[in-house]
Amino acid sequence: MTAVTTRRADAQRNIAAILTAAAECLGRNPAASTSEIAKAAGVGRVTLYGHFPSRAELVDAVFVQAIATGEETLGKVDLSGDPREALGRLIESSWHLVDQYRALLIAAQESLPPGRVRELHADPMARVEGLLERGRSTGVFRSDLPVEWLVSVMHNVMHGAASDLQAGRITSDQAAPYIVTTVLAAFTPPGERVPE
Amino acid sequence: MTAVTTRRADAQRNIAAILTAAAECLGRNPAASTSEIAKAAGVGRVTLYGHFPSRAELVDAVFVQAIATGEETLGKVDLSGDPREALGRLIESSWHLVDQYRALLIAAQESLPPGRVRELHADPMARVEGLLERGRSTGVFRSDLPVEWLVSVMHNVMHGAASDLQAGRITSDQAAPYIVTTVLAAFTPPGERVPE
Repeated sequence: MTAVTTRRADAQRNIAAILTAAAECLGRNPAASTSEIAKAAGVGRVTLYGHFPSRAELVDAVFVQAIATGEETLGKVDLSGDPREALGRLIESSWHLVDQYRALLIAAQESLPPGRVRELHADPMARVEGLLERGRSTGVFRSDLPVEWLVSVMHNVMHGAASDLQAGRITSDQAAPYIVTTVLAAFTPPGERVPE
Repeated sequence: MTAVTTRRADAQRNIAAILTAAAECLGRNPAASTSEIAKAAGVGRVTLYGHFPSRAELVDAVFVQAIATGEETLGKVDLSGDPREALGRLIESSWHLVDQYRALLIAAQESLPPGRVRELHADPMARVEGLLERGRSTGVFRSDLPVEWLVSVMHNVMHGAASDLQAGRITSDQAAPYIVTTVLAAFTPPGERVPE
């Protein structure tokens, strides 16, 4: 190995260690500092800032990674059959991810620019959009409101549930059925019956 | 007047000027700095920090004032008659307030501790809760989910619409009907028809 490839390998090892440590620290405490993260990663603060010039850039990178991991799980959800049942399965899986990454989500909401958290949800939101379109074409989901609005509603109800859980207003077990029940009613076409 | 009452009158005048300036500055730009606010209020930064030791405390005070002003408007909404129509009127009025105070809401969400924005919404939320209870007793609103959850859903859909508007995904005119339509569907009892 040349000196350059060695330096590159060191850098990659450091980046990986920082990301792993940041995910752990921010997952415990959304306000975790970069000094804390550097210490947990076994690197100096100068090394950390060399790779991530600001705390926000580090939070962003950890969030990008969490979304990618989540996407692997969501990609396995069976979206065939009755679109309402498929949406129920998708919400259930999505909720487990939101719940698991709750502290990181708070860190992201607090330190990333407005709109960035949603921007990073582009892939999971596109999946919901596809399922919504299929349900609209067969008339089980409403077509009188824009798809983008309905996706927003689901996103806001789910992320609001994370705050409700954080504040002790609901339990983790209640969240998924509450979200499914609420979203399925909200998506029911006008004049049609809300699922029992 | 004694020297003490003069100092007290000066202090009250300064506080009022700071709050007015802060409401204006934060209403234009959620990231407005305390120096900017002090300048607009015609006071020094030391005077500002004497009354509001941190930017967060100032944002909190401005938000408390906005909620109080909003409560005057919401207190005049006719909540009698069909609870669904009353909820429609209440959402319409609430939305105009959220829209009007949108930049301040963003400032509050970014600088106050998690849960504080919701805590400051206790009065408007209690009003929604009362209306929900009345609608549940006559069977027009669902009783299979806790009232507190349903109030959260309305709060999250409405505040989410503010982000959608900020990001240009919806217009201000679309917001109120979208929110009313969505919330009324979400509140419909299982097995009942969603309002047309």
